Amino acid sequence: MKRAEYPAAVRALVAELKRMPGVGPRSAERIALWMIQSRDARPGEIARAIGAVTETVQACPRCGFFTTEALCDLCTDPARDSALICVVELPTEILPLERTGAFRGRYHALGGRISPLDHIGPDDLRIDALLARIKVEAPSEIILALGADVEGEATANYLAGLLREFPVAVTRLAQGMPAGSGLEHADELTLSRAMSGRTRVG
Amino acid sequence: MKRAEYPAAVRALVAELKRMPGVGPRSAERIALWMIQSRDARPGEIARAIGAVTETVQACPRCGFFTTEALCDLCTDPARDSALICVVELPTEILPLERTGAFRGRYHALGGRISPLDHIGPDDLRIDALLARIKVEAPSEIILALGADVEGEATANYLAGLLREFPVAVTRLAQGMPAGSGLEHADELTLSRAMSGRTRVG
Repeated sequence: MKRAEYPAAVRALVAELKRMPGVGPRSAERIALWMIQSRDARPGEIARAIGAVTETVQACPRCGFFTTEALCDLCTDPARDSALICVVELPTEILPLERTGAFRGRYHALGGRISPLDHIGPDDLRIDALLARIKVEAPSEIILALGADVEGEATANYLAGLLREFPVAVTRLAQGMPAGSGLEHADELTLSRAMSGRTRVG
Repeated sequence: MKRAEYPAAVRALVAELKRMPGVGPRSAERIALWMIQSRDARPGEIARAIGAVTETVQACPRCGFFTTEALCDLCTDPARDSALICVVELPTEILPLERTGAFRGRYHALGGRISPLDHIGPDDLRIDALLARIKVEAPSEIILALGADVEGEATANYLAGLLREFPVAVTRLAQGMPAGSGLEHADELTLSRAMSGRTRVG
């Protein structure tokens, strides 16, 4: 007697779904069976949406955000301040910054950060493109919104060195206590940075 | 200034992915961005696997399991005992039973259970198909592997009534303590059923 299993097409779908981030073997199987069984699953619409994104969405050649046009909405919005360029590691970090409402300039995604252990050097990042933009757009300030970890710091230091020859102010995000968090939860490095970056209140 | 957002195609994909069971708004966004950004995402292969399942996989007309052929592997396997039919609510419950190795007969998925609150009556289930199978296949035993909850019990009682006119033994799964579980975790109904179904050990 053969031990029963799902048809090969179902097993292939489970294997594909399992590759998606955050989807384990059990939820992949659950999604696949839902696609087959549920009346309102409409899996064809999911497949079409994947196809549409694959065919139409690309990185904005200027800033690295996502777009279906020649340039993204951020780069073409005339109401944004072209004198400010906020440098981030990944394009996915742009929307979280946008949601703060604390920045109204342009962005530049590097596509990662310098990380010798991962064999990622400066040439693997969109640094030349940033320098070319600075020459053309002549911003007054470059904000380095990079991670507060070793690789983020190294990337920020490397960029700060390169940018010294341009007539532009280079700033970085403040480091200190996260909002809503007590001292007892802060690690030593965060506390140390919060202390050395203390600001005057009176 | 417009607050930036993802291109419409990306937002449409997030909305589609969010419909999948177990995928919330945040993981839908994470999956969509992974499909756009990751070198090894190969989203086209995921879309193709969805399409292949949608086009080729259907319910086995005899037992209700999944198949790409006229009948499923379970119904065509000559090594299975045709004298035993195990009745389940959903076709997805067949493989868990198979994995136990405790059953080597055929299956019949009803497609649900009687549930007046959900407007599901006997006519909405594959009960006529079961009776037709019994007439043709003349099994010696029907095992009702239905849920140990109110709707499962009601469905089992309804089927037991119908099956009385056939020369077939009707059995149901044992109820009692789940394996590996102590008495302190068992609810009152489980304990009561375990007590009344107690078996002799010496």
